[in-house]
Amino acid sequence: ASHVHKKLTGLVAATFTPLTTEGEINPSVIGPYIDYLIDKQGVRNVFVNGTTGEGISLSVDERKRLAAEWCEKGKGKLEQVIVHVGCMCLRESQDLARHAAEVGADGIAVVSPSVFKPSDTGVLREFLKEVAAAAPDLPFYYYHIPALTGVNFLARDVLEGIEECIPSFRGLKFSGSDLMDFGQCVQYCPPHWSLLYGMDEQLLAALAMGANGAVGSTFNYLGNKVNGLLSAFEKGDLNQARTLQFQVQEVLSFAVKLGFDVAVNKKLMSEVSGLALGPPRLPLRPCPQKRATSIAQKLQQVL
Amino acid sequence: ASHVHKKLTGLVAATFTPLTTEGEINPSVIGPYIDYLIDKQGVRNVFVNGTTGEGISLSVDERKRLAAEWCEKGKGKLEQVIVHVGCMCLRESQDLARHAAEVGADGIAVVSPSVFKPSDTGVLREFLKEVAAAAPDLPFYYYHIPALTGVNFLARDVLEGIEECIPSFRGLKFSGSDLMDFGQCVQYCPPHWSLLYGMDEQLLAALAMGANGAVGSTFNYLGNKVNGLLSAFEKGDLNQARTLQFQVQEVLSFAVKLGFDVAVNKKLMSEVSGLALGPPRLPLRPCPQKRATSIAQKLQQVL
Amino acid sequence: ASHVHKKLTGLVAATFTPLTTEGEINPSVIGPYIDYLIDKQGVRNVFVNGTTGEGISLSVDERKRLAAEWCEKGKGKLEQVIVHVGCMCLRESQDLARHAAEVGADGIAVVSPSVFKPSDTGVLREFLKEVAAAAPDLPFYYYHIPALTGVNFLARDVLEGIEECIPSFRGLKFSGSDLMDFGQCVQYCPPHWSLLYGMDEQLLAALAMGANGAVGSTFNYLGNKVNGLLSAFEKGDLNQARTLQFQVQEVLSFAVKLGFDVAVNKKLMSEVSGLALGPPRLPLRPCPQKRATSIAQKLQQVL
Amino acid sequence: ASHVHKKLTGLVAATFTPLTTEGEINPSVIGPYIDYLIDKQGVRNVFVNGTTGEGISLSVDERKRLAAEWCEKGKGKLEQVIVHVGCMCLRESQDLARHAAEVGADGIAVVSPSVFKPSDTGVLREFLKEVAAAAPDLPFYYYHIPALTGVNFLARDVLEGIEECIPSFRGLKFSGSDLMDFGQCVQYCPPHWSLLYGMDEQLLAALAMGANGAVGSTFNYLGNKVNGLLSAFEKGDLNQARTLQFQVQEVLSFAVKLGFDVAVNKKLMSEVSGLALGPPRLPLRPCPQKRATSIAQKLQQVL
Repeated sequence: ASHVHKKLTGLVAATFTPLTTEGEINPSVIGPYIDYLIDKQGVRNVFVNGTTGEGISLSVDERKRLAAEWCEKGKGKLEQVIVHVGCMCLRESQDLARHAAEVGADGIAVVSPSVFKPSDTGVLREFLKEVAAAAPDLPFYYYHIPALTGVNFLARDVLEGIEECIPSFRGLKFSGSDLMDFGQCVQYCPPHWSLLYGMDEQLLAALAMGANGAVGSTFNYLGNKVNGLLSAFEKGDLNQARTLQFQVQEVLSFAVKLGFDVAVNKKLMSEVSGLALGPPRLPLRPCPQKRATSIAQKLQQVL
Repeated sequence: ASHVHKKLTGLVAATFTPLTTEGEINPSVIGPYIDYLIDKQGVRNVFVNGTTGEGISLSVDERKRLAAEWCEKGKGKLEQVIVHVGCMCLRESQDLARHAAEVGADGIAVVSPSVFKPSDTGVLREFLKEVAAAAPDLPFYYYHIPALTGVNFLARDVLEGIEECIPSFRGLKFSGSDLMDFGQCVQYCPPHWSLLYGMDEQLLAALAMGANGAVGSTFNYLGNKVNGLLSAFEKGDLNQARTLQFQVQEVLSFAVKLGFDVAVNKKLMSEVSGLALGPPRLPLRPCPQKRATSIAQKLQQVL
Repeated sequence: ASHVHKKLTGLVAATFTPLTTEGEINPSVIGPYIDYLIDKQGVRNVFVNGTTGEGISLSVDERKRLAAEWCEKGKGKLEQVIVHVGCMCLRESQDLARHAAEVGADGIAVVSPSVFKPSDTGVLREFLKEVAAAAPDLPFYYYHIPALTGVNFLARDVLEGIEECIPSFRGLKFSGSDLMDFGQCVQYCPPHWSLLYGMDEQLLAALAMGANGAVGSTFNYLGNKVNGLLSAFEKGDLNQARTLQFQVQEVLSFAVKLGFDVAVNKKLMSEVSGLALGPPRLPLRPCPQKRATSIAQKLQQVL
Repeated sequence: ASHVHKKLTGLVAATFTPLTTEGEINPSVIGPYIDYLIDKQGVRNVFVNGTTGEGISLSVDERKRLAAEWCEKGKGKLEQVIVHVGCMCLRESQDLARHAAEVGADGIAVVSPSVFKPSDTGVLREFLKEVAAAAPDLPFYYYHIPALTGVNFLARDVLEGIEECIPSFRGLKFSGSDLMDFGQCVQYCPPHWSLLYGMDEQLLAALAMGANGAVGSTFNYLGNKVNGLLSAFEKGDLNQARTLQFQVQEVLSFAVKLGFDVAVNKKLMSEVSGLALGPPRLPLRPCPQKRATSIAQKLQQVL
């Protein structure tokens, strides 16, 4: 991971967290995982300990060990390792932010707390600022995912004046379907920020609105396909971009019909990659083998 | 209005319903309204008695008189008059569908009933089929607006096998933000169907996914602007399309901050067009003059 | 039905609407239905054309014919016939209110419109007032059912100053689970109002808070049981009241597990009473025979 | 705190967490807090580190220090100290459960994780079981609060067969308004379980259904009043119980109109008790003084 901060663009894989069959974290898989992402999927940025990584189901200590491993093993291989340090507890987020800086992360990201919800964007910015201040040299990203958090502020309103408040602010992961809000963020953001879209199934729409890249779980196994989508879009070949987007949609629609959560997604990745990612942690229920196999077959058809 | 059914494309204005200051319908405004749409906004298709037209707040008799007037005054001027005939009561929808055929509408559209909600897509298709059968020669459009109806089926699932069930089926108005669902509809639909997007604030995203046109209230006063967006998109000038979309977003974001519902929208249209559209009907509260003036000023800045 | 307005108390059956197998209204069943309610269930008040009666799925003309029949056949038998005249369209509600007065109803009730939702309690009261004014001599009841309408004002706030605004106001049907709001209504209401609770499965809780009676669909077939509950409660025998309430809950929990909507409820009533209520109207799907039979058996066990 | 497990009944105060003005936990307030509860409010049971205590906003270490202090200072004074050990992370919940046993808690309680939500009641019971197994000798309570967690299973379904799965299971805190579900829990539960209701504003309704007691934040300052309510109810004086319940409602309705969250509640308690509870932790915003004063005045009027 580089220490010259460059703008985060292109695809960022939201990584799964490898667990042993006993449910302990299994950092030994991370090295091979990085090689897989680079060699097989053409993906060189990762978003660690986020939703896909079951970050919220991990203890603070586990999150630190995972972040350290991703940074160490990614050195010289990955372009950027972004560590998600969002917690319900501010003190723990600060602790994780400091640690991310120590282990050489390229940036940190924070989601809004969601059990107690901030009552307005001002108090949310205060929360984010307190976390960012614990790692002031690391690029800071806000992770906007209202369907998960129930925090329904417009992202654009959260961004208002945010760089004065958080000097290290560098962009957001926007995992929402309100593209007026997203468009307003695009219009507002200065060139050194990154606007990364987080709903892989409709990435093309966000590119049309001006997204700089994307953070998502499907790039773990559909990275090449979506890199093709990005290239087609950049070349102005909208028909080709649409064809590729529809292929992604075909897989995901199929998965959604069968039942698709982080547990199923993780099992699918194990099937496709051969990496031993292990089971999810409770309260997620392990994915039935049959379901993962069906989705993997659908994926192979489309690739 | 023509009787050779041609595919509905481009912009369709969802029209407001003119009322007198006493709250009675005021069909005399419809003639000038049509001229305004054509001459000032470059819009030649209308969607009558829908959400924007407060259709659900009108009696069956009022809806008939309005539909008749739009068809009569639009003859030789408008390209297509689509009459929305959705009601909570199937019998009344059938009555309105028959009437639309009699007065020469170019198509009918139906939203899902939403007090009693269909329990699955099959029973929704049955409902739609019973309405369509009352006007079998008219192109039939399904109006998908889950945030209003609370009927959260995927539009794609509603479309499954729908033309075998409803031979006159010709497309849908998709007023939702789930663009995977929208993309799956695009992929499924045969060339003689129209996929019209209904969230004007993010039309560009839907065009990228393959929309054929759009139905919306803002085309009443932003028709020229959005026609420019469509042209830029067709020419492959995505930057220009995005610039125009952001202008539309700027107006609508501003309006939403002040409070923006059908009553405000209607008053805004009166301000901008000079047409005497009158107040909304209860349970909508009339828009304060000041709010309409502010939004109209914002609109002028952008135009 | 008497023309001296007396306070509405005790049980009020929310009646089903009899349809023929072809789906036309079937008023001939109403006479025997009244006899059944009185003779077999000990229920002498009815709430006609409400949710249970699929009022919103009926045309204005059908609602009038049904209201007329209930009033005519109920004369000298029923104590009170309350006609629900709520519509999405104010004009139609007014029309129905005038008609209810003509045919001798003992009161009218109105639910909030729910497609366009009133933006505050003031505009909701204005809507209610306009309807009430069309039948100024009839006791007027507000029908509060936020889970159905999505109109989430506190009922207590709707009641604020309502009798100055609507001189004929006489109470409300409260179909909600917010018992602080209900309690505040009890505290606020003068003795000549009726506070009728509408969630049969937890009526005992509302009685403890001070309810005057209840409007519900289950009194069609559980009237005797719930009359027993009312008597036990009035005698101060809370243990017995609780035992009866748990029996009602046992039936309804069982029904909910199998799937329980107005269509199932209607079929259950046909099974239990022998009355030919016919199918529901679209968009409701007819209840599978097996489900109705299972629930009816459960009901027999409990009785 | 006693080590002979006796059934938990009556009032349980959900305690606030004292913080210094710098936002650090301030255990020195806990001793005086206990004396206040006993001497001024007649409350001898506490529920520590729950929603009211901002448990989710505290680090694991902070939660341990607080639990230890409540147990130590409560020894010989409080009847029962229940420690809430629910976390998003199973491992951390287990750690807290073990610690609660070590410091002599009288029971532990666990809420469902709510970022990742259990997909069915079976996997929720598995999660609860894993936590309970870390402190097998402590009475275990399930904390049901669907409006906060978004986990909408019926509590009754969660209880199904739970004691076979969790031998230490002893009851639940039911913070919901579905009193059919609550009633079904009452019917199902054996005599050695406690059914504690958690919505103070409608406790009387739950008592009518058969509640054994209550856990709530308002007992911190309305304990005497609600002890009066319990006594009146037990004596069969429903009128008196209702009068007292309405007084509680009057205070809470007033507070809700002004804005009432845990931060406001905490400040109110500081005002009323004189204890230095300090500010809330982010993301909660400190309560404006004026609001706390207004609510405290209302409270004095009612007392």
